[in-house]
Amino acid sequence: MRSTMQDHPLNLGDLVRYGTSTHGAAQVVTWTGGEPRRTTYAEVGRRAAQLAHALRSLGVTGDQRVATFQWNNQEHLEAYLAVPAMGAVLHTLNIRLPAEQLVYIANHAEDHVIIVDATLVPLLAPLLGQLRTVQHVIVAGGDPGDALDGAAVQVHRYDDLLSSQPTEFDWPVVDERDAAAMCYTSGTTGDPKGVVYSHRSIWLHSMQVAMTDGMGLTQADYVLAIVPMFHAMSWGLPYAALMIGSSTLMPDRFLQPEPLVDMTVAERPTAAAAVPTIWQGVLAELDARPRDISTLRQVIVGGSTCPPSLMRAFEERHNVPILHAWGMTETSPLGSVAHAPGGTTGDEAWRYRITQGRLPASVQARLIGSDGAQVPWDGTSVGELEVRGPWIAGGYYQVEAGDKFHDGWLRTGDVGTLTPDGFLTLTDRAKDVIKSGGEWISSVDIENEVMAHPAVAEAAVIAVPDPRWDERPLVSVVVAEGESVDATQLRSFLADRLPKWQLPEYWTFLDEVPKTSVGKFDKKVLRARHADGDLTVTEAR
Amino acid sequence: MRSTMQDHPLNLGDLVRYGTSTHGAAQVVTWTGGEPRRTTYAEVGRRAAQLAHALRSLGVTGDQRVATFQWNNQEHLEAYLAVPAMGAVLHTLNIRLPAEQLVYIANHAEDHVIIVDATLVPLLAPLLGQLRTVQHVIVAGGDPGDALDGAAVQVHRYDDLLSSQPTEFDWPVVDERDAAAMCYTSGTTGDPKGVVYSHRSIWLHSMQVAMTDGMGLTQADYVLAIVPMFHAMSWGLPYAALMIGSSTLMPDRFLQPEPLVDMTVAERPTAAAAVPTIWQGVLAELDARPRDISTLRQVIVGGSTCPPSLMRAFEERHNVPILHAWGMTETSPLGSVAHAPGGTTGDEAWRYRITQGRLPASVQARLIGSDGAQVPWDGTSVGELEVRGPWIAGGYYQVEAGDKFHDGWLRTGDVGTLTPDGFLTLTDRAKDVIKSGGEWISSVDIENEVMAHPAVAEAAVIAVPDPRWDERPLVSVVVAEGESVDATQLRSFLADRLPKWQLPEYWTFLDEVPKTSVGKFDKKVLRARHADGDLTVTEAR
Repeated sequence: MRSTMQDHPLNLGDLVRYGTSTHGAAQVVTWTGGEPRRTTYAEVGRRAAQLAHALRSLGVTGDQRVATFQWNNQEHLEAYLAVPAMGAVLHTLNIRLPAEQLVYIANHAEDHVIIVDATLVPLLAPLLGQLRTVQHVIVAGGDPGDALDGAAVQVHRYDDLLSSQPTEFDWPVVDERDAAAMCYTSGTTGDPKGVVYSHRSIWLHSMQVAMTDGMGLTQADYVLAIVPMFHAMSWGLPYAALMIGSSTLMPDRFLQPEPLVDMTVAERPTAAAAVPTIWQGVLAELDARPRDISTLRQVIVGGSTCPPSLMRAFEERHNVPILHAWGMTETSPLGSVAHAPGGTTGDEAWRYRITQGRLPASVQARLIGSDGAQVPWDGTSVGELEVRGPWIAGGYYQVEAGDKFHDGWLRTGDVGTLTPDGFLTLTDRAKDVIKSGGEWISSVDIENEVMAHPAVAEAAVIAVPDPRWDERPLVSVVVAEGESVDATQLRSFLADRLPKWQLPEYWTFLDEVPKTSVGKFDKKVLRARHADGDLTVTEAR
Repeated sequence: MRSTMQDHPLNLGDLVRYGTSTHGAAQVVTWTGGEPRRTTYAEVGRRAAQLAHALRSLGVTGDQRVATFQWNNQEHLEAYLAVPAMGAVLHTLNIRLPAEQLVYIANHAEDHVIIVDATLVPLLAPLLGQLRTVQHVIVAGGDPGDALDGAAVQVHRYDDLLSSQPTEFDWPVVDERDAAAMCYTSGTTGDPKGVVYSHRSIWLHSMQVAMTDGMGLTQADYVLAIVPMFHAMSWGLPYAALMIGSSTLMPDRFLQPEPLVDMTVAERPTAAAAVPTIWQGVLAELDARPRDISTLRQVIVGGSTCPPSLMRAFEERHNVPILHAWGMTETSPLGSVAHAPGGTTGDEAWRYRITQGRLPASVQARLIGSDGAQVPWDGTSVGELEVRGPWIAGGYYQVEAGDKFHDGWLRTGDVGTLTPDGFLTLTDRAKDVIKSGGEWISSVDIENEVMAHPAVAEAAVIAVPDPRWDERPLVSVVVAEGESVDATQLRSFLADRLPKWQLPEYWTFLDEVPKTSVGKFDKKVLRARHADGDLTVTEAR
């Protein structure tokens, strides 16, 4: 028996029509370092229509890819609206990627047009010769100078291109499962992989962002979206804000702690979103030059686990509550949000708030243990998190990635526990966990405990082969300046902090732990150095 | 280009699995007049599984209809969960309908099973002989006595039927566009018509209820759902509450003002939902016996327009904010909600709050004027509201109803205005509006102005044929006891209250305005009496 409901597809054209009319008065503000650029959704809607006409005039048809190479600013938002709503596919290029990855990604996605901020032209120009499918570069927000002279593409000025175009566009209604946008993951192994979002997935995800168990974004909010629009769709904030009429403050290239605090004090946003390292910087800035940022009723932190001390510092010293969330490019990205259950307060509430939080109804989860079977949601059994749902990736664009999926579920690569009431705590990355005698040891747990020793500056743990237990932890230690400590002392220190069977036997002492480009421990390098015999390993039992 | 998102259907089986585990500790409380019956979503989930097994054992397969004839209580909620989640179709029978309509509806829907509250058996038993497809009656919540003796159906006791069944059920994943539930509109003309909700429409609607621009229901809420589960799916509250883990308080048959206040004082719910007449009664009860109901952080009022005086009284005298909303059975029912825009306060906020509110992104609207063309959203141009979207009906179950739909849009039968920023104000029912010389006159506006005269007790306005203007208003007046007033005086009274061209020429004086079963003016009867020449019409110009 079929329902009698209308078979109306979820569609970003409808979203643009709605948000730019019903919420046409909402503000869109771009920070410039000087006088902010202020406009409204109504005007952004008119300019998005002009952009769509302009792209058509450049020959963009069907589901061709229009790439952006931009900071968070008004023009980037216009592309977010125009490109999917006209039926094309928005491809956000991550400006921070190494040149060879950018070239690979733009070629793999077959980008037809790139919209680039004038300030980023110097980064893009050297790559253009290697981009096989790009025919047009549109420079937004200023003069490109001579950096693009001689490029084998047509170069356009964004404002010139739009100026003569009509300010209305008949946004088509497309199949809700068609591609709307794509974003490549900067995978640590192999080539980057493209996640392709649908109109449906973005619509549903936007609703979740404005649900009370999501980010609870409201029409009255003024959102400082620090998380880049080239990183996991700025956590879905641009579309969610348009859906419910939140105003938007965009920092453009001013992502240093000082201007971030400046714009918060000046513009008084009510919500903000960024990774922990940004907030660490903001906290230091506020320590150095105290100012009041308490207009922020909520700050969303995700991307990597937020230290509880940082959460407490913002709340206790600056009256700004931090909302911890988890997600990844493959999950659109909203996966879980750590709202404390109703009725909990104080330390009880904190116990929930420092977890990765609860998954909403639309994101199903299961934990797969070391034996490949599901482990119970008992708060202690550890497994790899697998998720499923309408805004979760089930594959990548034109590549096979079978080991990333498991019977239709996305393998997140994250290892942790779930409580009976659905609170997720991640303890490690699956590739970093130590599989010892059929049990899993969290590398992160050991690192945290070792780093609690006053003589230790840094500690990174990898798994190394062990004839009896399959794998055992190897701890790489950086001793703090002016201190000294040895493996036996550290093992003793851990004795009442970890279960006996987890106590590491293998230790190595380094001047520095190798780091990735975003400052995380680079365990891939440590594993390679150990495999090559380049580490001096001490045993302590 | 297809997206790489998982093609995961929106599904009530998933919702039941999620809500009864992640939110398993949330409370489900049924008022009994004595000690409330308390349980949890976890237990309701186990009993829903038992109910599904029991229904299978009675032969319920595929998309067969399982009807309910119940108050809002735990067993009704169990049916809400079990029936759609097992793939069958929940059919909520409106216990307040006349017998012949109930018989028509149950036969038209081909109900296979009816679950009935023991207290409602006396209402159902006399009809059973005329129900052609019903094979099983399951009596919940008590002993049916001998009322069902001799009925040509199998009679079961709910608890007995469930007791031996397994407490887990492997809820199937079904096509999201398949039927989940159905509800007949008690149309004022013609036979009742069935609206069939899909798994998809219910899922999306539940998300909207928990969105900040919907009802903003949260996990911390304890919801007193007074609006009957047999009336427009209790405004979607049962599924929305399950989706985000709100606790639920259900009044069973105790819908009188006194027990409603009693249960609010005793149970301290944080949110409630009911039609204006319920709140009018609660207000009078509180005037008679003052008590504190201010645990209610929000009361949702819909079903018919809420008098602003009632909204103000609750807020100013009882510290309970009323949230005005509009919808209908055909809109699942959430259509619009009157949140004042951020930053507005005082009288400015009230101007928004007394409208029908804003439509969310998923509900598109247009106004069709008297000439069949769209009228602008300027806050003054009047048209019939038409809506479109994924939880809006596009037809009725197995009947043609072409005139209820227009190019794929639902004709709501409501007439009103929209502001540029999307606030809806309804001024009349389309069938009551007076089409005079190409313009529309609101019958409700004239009624309100006439009733403002101190000598008038009641006034109802209908359109009557007019040779020059097509239609003109006829005002039926009931003079207040001990007062006297004539047509000329009333017309003079209106002179500075209405535009000149709207001033009525035709008047009739009655002892009483005929009313429908729910107490609304029955204009159908007035129109028939006028057509039959049974009204004495006075002319005043």
